[in-house]
Amino acid sequence: MSGGLVIAGLGPGDDALVTPEVSAALERATDVIGYIPYVARVADRPGLVKHASDNRVEIDRAQLALSLAAEGARVVVVSSGDPGVFAMASAVFEAVEAGPVAWRALDIRVLPGITAMLAAAARVGAPLGHDFCAINLSDNLKPWAVIDRRLRLALEADFAIALYNPRSAARPEGFARTLELLREACKPERVMIFARAVSTPEEDLRVVALGEAAPGMADMRTVVLIGSSATRIIARDGTPLVYTPRSVPV
Amino acid sequence: MSGGLVIAGLGPGDDALVTPEVSAALERATDVIGYIPYVARVADRPGLVKHASDNRVEIDRAQLALSLAAEGARVVVVSSGDPGVFAMASAVFEAVEAGPVAWRALDIRVLPGITAMLAAAARVGAPLGHDFCAINLSDNLKPWAVIDRRLRLALEADFAIALYNPRSAARPEGFARTLELLREACKPERVMIFARAVSTPEEDLRVVALGEAAPGMADMRTVVLIGSSATRIIARDGTPLVYTPRSVPV
Repeated sequence: MSGGLVIAGLGPGDDALVTPEVSAALERATDVIGYIPYVARVADRPGLVKHASDNRVEIDRAQLALSLAAEGARVVVVSSGDPGVFAMASAVFEAVEAGPVAWRALDIRVLPGITAMLAAAARVGAPLGHDFCAINLSDNLKPWAVIDRRLRLALEADFAIALYNPRSAARPEGFARTLELLREACKPERVMIFARAVSTPEEDLRVVALGEAAPGMADMRTVVLIGSSATRIIARDGTPLVYTPRSVPV
Repeated sequence: MSGGLVIAGLGPGDDALVTPEVSAALERATDVIGYIPYVARVADRPGLVKHASDNRVEIDRAQLALSLAAEGARVVVVSSGDPGVFAMASAVFEAVEAGPVAWRALDIRVLPGITAMLAAAARVGAPLGHDFCAINLSDNLKPWAVIDRRLRLALEADFAIALYNPRSAARPEGFARTLELLREACKPERVMIFARAVSTPEEDLRVVALGEAAPGMADMRTVVLIGSSATRIIARDGTPLVYTPRSVPV
């Protein structure tokens, strides 16, 4: 069996959300590469080498994966969620484009996974049940002005919005600015969902009105969903149901 | 065991993309409800009643599911892809909100699935690797003016864009209009992906430049992805790799 590179999504945390396709790829792997907590999710077994690395070294990790695959290893790069949504797949393709031409001939496959916004949405109902967008709130790799502009246009389009990487200790101010922007553009009743560590033992879900939202409700393990103007709440005992109707009235 | 309602995503077609959580729910079900081809994907077994219905009767289907669950059945409503993305979950919650108060107390759970845009993206690389949006191009439930406005704002925000339900026999003109709008706003090199029936035996993938795109390339089994202005193609033998870089230069 010749080498190759699989970029696999492990979903948000619960093994019951890992697709059989991903599980099978992990069983065939000789090498697993990724951020420490994701690599830790893969069971040890004889013949499997685990290469765990710290955050923010995506390109190093991608180059290692491609080098090993080129030497004949069966490499799986693991991401949480879906590897194509603010995760490792783009980093690998950046490395392919910048790397030796031989890397383009490798057998490279991306295996999708359950991305955080869809796992979070499912937990509370169907807040992304109509047109929506996903924005990475980290300004490590793009200027804040781009994020600001996209947020404003997304609100003008009345999309439901999923915010990835909303707030870290190193850059707490972006999410605070986002809340200010939302308060300028939306009514205080606008529905927000703070979904932390969905499907893990640390899961924490909050459905709040924009008027009650506070910056400290989000961290790097949180995905934040913002309803469109049409998003509705169905009150009941416990966490309410939240959904966005399929119809937009004429 | 008391009754309840699960709204489950079967993914795009391949059983290797069905999560173990969804498979387990189907094994426990007394009743499976959904559109004919999705219900057909669930294996027959003693004790399981399959209720298959035609398209465009989502609310009838949701009411049947809720009525059965209220009577104590273990009901699974099946959607393709993810049930919260242009699928059955919103229809069920619309029925809950409009129905008897007792329905709010039911055990209702949404189980996420691999939605078409993420399966399609994975097949060609990582075209949704940066900020993106998803728009349902069907104007059955919303005026075309809303779609047109959202498309224009999405292009202005420079999102990658996924178009669901791009074109049906009954409304072929919407996608033709969309291509015209794209041609006004984007260069002819803008990358497009037509991904039909991903992960099924009928899968058909095309990566084309906007200048070469034609309305007939899409139908109701196609999801169309439109790159952002930054989306790149890596040429190689066979289908090229397509990805959107993680960075936006200052």
